[in-house]
Amino acid sequence: MSQLNLRIDQIHEAIERQDDVTLDNLLAEVSSSETARLIEASTPENRSVIWACLDVQKRAGVLKSIHGKVRQFLIDITPEDALLESLFLLQPDELADIDEDLPGTVINAMIAAMDELRKRRYNSVKHYPDNTAGGLMDTDATAVRADVSVRSVLRYLRLLRKKEGEMPEQLDSLMVVDRTNKLLGVLPLSEVVSLPPDTLVADILGESFQAILVDASQERVARIFLDCDLLSAPVVDHNYRLLGRITIDDVVDVIQEQADDKMLRSAGLESNADMFSPVLTSAYKRGYWLGINLITAFVAAWVIGLFEAVIEQLIALAVLMPVVASMGGVAGSQTLTIVTRGLALNQIGRSNIAQLIAHEASVVFLNGIVWALAVAAIALYWFGDPMLGIVFGVALLIVLVTGVIGGIFIPLLLQRMSIDPAVAGSVVLTTFTDAIGFFSFLGLAKLLI
Amino acid sequence: MSQLNLRIDQIHEAIERQDDVTLDNLLAEVSSSETARLIEASTPENRSVIWACLDVQKRAGVLKSIHGKVRQFLIDITPEDALLESLFLLQPDELADIDEDLPGTVINAMIAAMDELRKRRYNSVKHYPDNTAGGLMDTDATAVRADVSVRSVLRYLRLLRKKEGEMPEQLDSLMVVDRTNKLLGVLPLSEVVSLPPDTLVADILGESFQAILVDASQERVARIFLDCDLLSAPVVDHNYRLLGRITIDDVVDVIQEQADDKMLRSAGLESNADMFSPVLTSAYKRGYWLGINLITAFVAAWVIGLFEAVIEQLIALAVLMPVVASMGGVAGSQTLTIVTRGLALNQIGRSNIAQLIAHEASVVFLNGIVWALAVAAIALYWFGDPMLGIVFGVALLIVLVTGVIGGIFIPLLLQRMSIDPAVAGSVVLTTFTDAIGFFSFLGLAKLLI
Repeated sequence: MSQLNLRIDQIHEAIERQDDVTLDNLLAEVSSSETARLIEASTPENRSVIWACLDVQKRAGVLKSIHGKVRQFLIDITPEDALLESLFLLQPDELADIDEDLPGTVINAMIAAMDELRKRRYNSVKHYPDNTAGGLMDTDATAVRADVSVRSVLRYLRLLRKKEGEMPEQLDSLMVVDRTNKLLGVLPLSEVVSLPPDTLVADILGESFQAILVDASQERVARIFLDCDLLSAPVVDHNYRLLGRITIDDVVDVIQEQADDKMLRSAGLESNADMFSPVLTSAYKRGYWLGINLITAFVAAWVIGLFEAVIEQLIALAVLMPVVASMGGVAGSQTLTIVTRGLALNQIGRSNIAQLIAHEASVVFLNGIVWALAVAAIALYWFGDPMLGIVFGVALLIVLVTGVIGGIFIPLLLQRMSIDPAVAGSVVLTTFTDAIGFFSFLGLAKLLI
Repeated sequence: MSQLNLRIDQIHEAIERQDDVTLDNLLAEVSSSETARLIEASTPENRSVIWACLDVQKRAGVLKSIHGKVRQFLIDITPEDALLESLFLLQPDELADIDEDLPGTVINAMIAAMDELRKRRYNSVKHYPDNTAGGLMDTDATAVRADVSVRSVLRYLRLLRKKEGEMPEQLDSLMVVDRTNKLLGVLPLSEVVSLPPDTLVADILGESFQAILVDASQERVARIFLDCDLLSAPVVDHNYRLLGRITIDDVVDVIQEQADDKMLRSAGLESNADMFSPVLTSAYKRGYWLGINLITAFVAAWVIGLFEAVIEQLIALAVLMPVVASMGGVAGSQTLTIVTRGLALNQIGRSNIAQLIAHEASVVFLNGIVWALAVAAIALYWFGDPMLGIVFGVALLIVLVTGVIGGIFIPLLLQRMSIDPAVAGSVVLTTFTDAIGFFSFLGLAKLLI
């Protein structure tokens, strides 16, 4: 599995040679989620060739796990009846996750072909926003009553299996409800298989359990699963009626997607960026970010412009000024990372901000003294000008300390403005430290030299 | 749970007021993993106060889930017998995860007090490196034979429960082995509870299953769990003998830790950075990173120094040069992010690099043309010098294109040198784009102005 890149090479070479037999054999050895990664890593032409070689089953798996933009592409190139064949293999909650990419005619044909149970499950999920517990849940929770014995539970499950042919995927526990479908507790299957058959369900339910409200955000769902080490959890409405269940594999997907999304967006890329999206689309999206950064870069240039006369007197200032700005950015981004992480984990409140500032300020002050002396010595040696050395050292100390202050307050401010500090923090900080860096260095030089 | 920061404030205020009753009440409402986050977010003094208020059970939970450096601190301030009381409540595999932080005397006392079963489980886990499947697994896999009926399996599980008092945590499936303990398959509990009692285990085992080799890296384990949507998986030695099982909650912890670790290390912070580690320790670790960045900043300064004479002739160059360097960095980091992500997902092989380069180069070339014209116009308007505008625009185009080339080759090169591109890529790229940016802008100016 760590060999996926070699597999990709072999597959692309087979496509090049138009060697369909080898291509089929190679694709047969790759799991559907790996096939999804493979298709993402191919050019649009190769994507079509690979897609044409996949069977209905594999296509269903790929549609489930491929990133948004590429899924849209695959759906667009597939005839409707072939598409429907694959869609029939997906669970109703999986369908609800991808249905925004499907043409209306396909959705209607899909619903028309569903049996009553699937239709009910699909309809009950699709109304909830994708990024809430309702959007994540599946409605295949298996529920039992509290006033029955373990023996009756086993009998009921065997009947259910006989009727439906299979059990829900990843079933690790049953939900216990009263006659109004109100959730009373969760019964792990490990209890069902190991307790004496005449134990009453009600007698095992003593322990606390975690239910998730249907409108909880997916971030909150992820936090509950992580904090409580859950494999699955019941989803309830505000009257505690059982609606469905969420299993941890969906939660893991959420966690992965969020991390991926943050990384991409902090570099000014779109969510789910496609490696081979059309050049014009990519260029437009990235150009937007370049434009924003151009503005921030001109802020720094404007600050430098204020001091043209000083630079004219001493060109060494132009040589050294990027050093000051860049060091401020580095020190600030270390603090920014600590604070952004603390905010993400909800660890920062009124009571520890002052302590955090004190800690970060002490750390940077110690470093500032050391590095200020170092750069002063370097400047003195390089340009033989003691005053330049002093100005360089003092400016470095100033920018390191203000960088750290920016690293604390910029994420706090962004969060208050409901902007994700993990995405925007770094750009704002760099603009800030560049401006401060150039201003303090050139300003000090104007005063002292 | 999203209110942890408010809770932190209330708790810190109670400590301030020395209001032990409120403090106890507040702490009782917080789960152990939240308590771990709370302790991490407190100063060393407050950590001691909070730790003193926790009962044995809560302490065990905190020790399990708190970050490394803070765990060491808590262990150091706890008397050995109190520590042992909490350690007794942990599972053998959890103990093996934290035992490197424990004093030798505590480990010996802990082992001496273990019953035979726990001792065997602890000893069989502790030899494996923490970052392999062996280090992640627990040895509480419950195994059955293939030639028995579902009824016998149920009978066996009930006996086992009677003998041991409880079932392993998060048990969702049984392992099926032959008489030499060789793994034959996995039997989900949902099958055990739903199939007719006289079904033979052997008859259900048809489907394929995923076993994990004991020396597989934790990254590989995570990938297998994600790709196959597993809740748990058997761990085997190279002869396919069953050694234990890994459950998904441990895998999720690995995924979270790895993401956290990358983020911290890419800002030059230590893994598991502690918000309130001793100032001198923090200063030393961060100073190291500042030093590396100082060197890279001086590389850029040295490049500028080559062109002092040109700048002296035209101070506007000093004003505009940071714009060129910064835009190169931004364009490069967009490509770097795409490539680093592709490498992490194993999506980049020999066959698609050329296509990737073509795609990225086209994207940046389009953007380069647009932004080169824009900055040329700005420079013309600002400084009234057409030649300066041309130099500025052409240099911007050059640095954008070379930035993107750097964004592709730097992560590939770092990976070949076994350096994680997600950690080091950004520093190397910035050094590269700064140097190229200053050199192309000032060099062109020297030639043309």
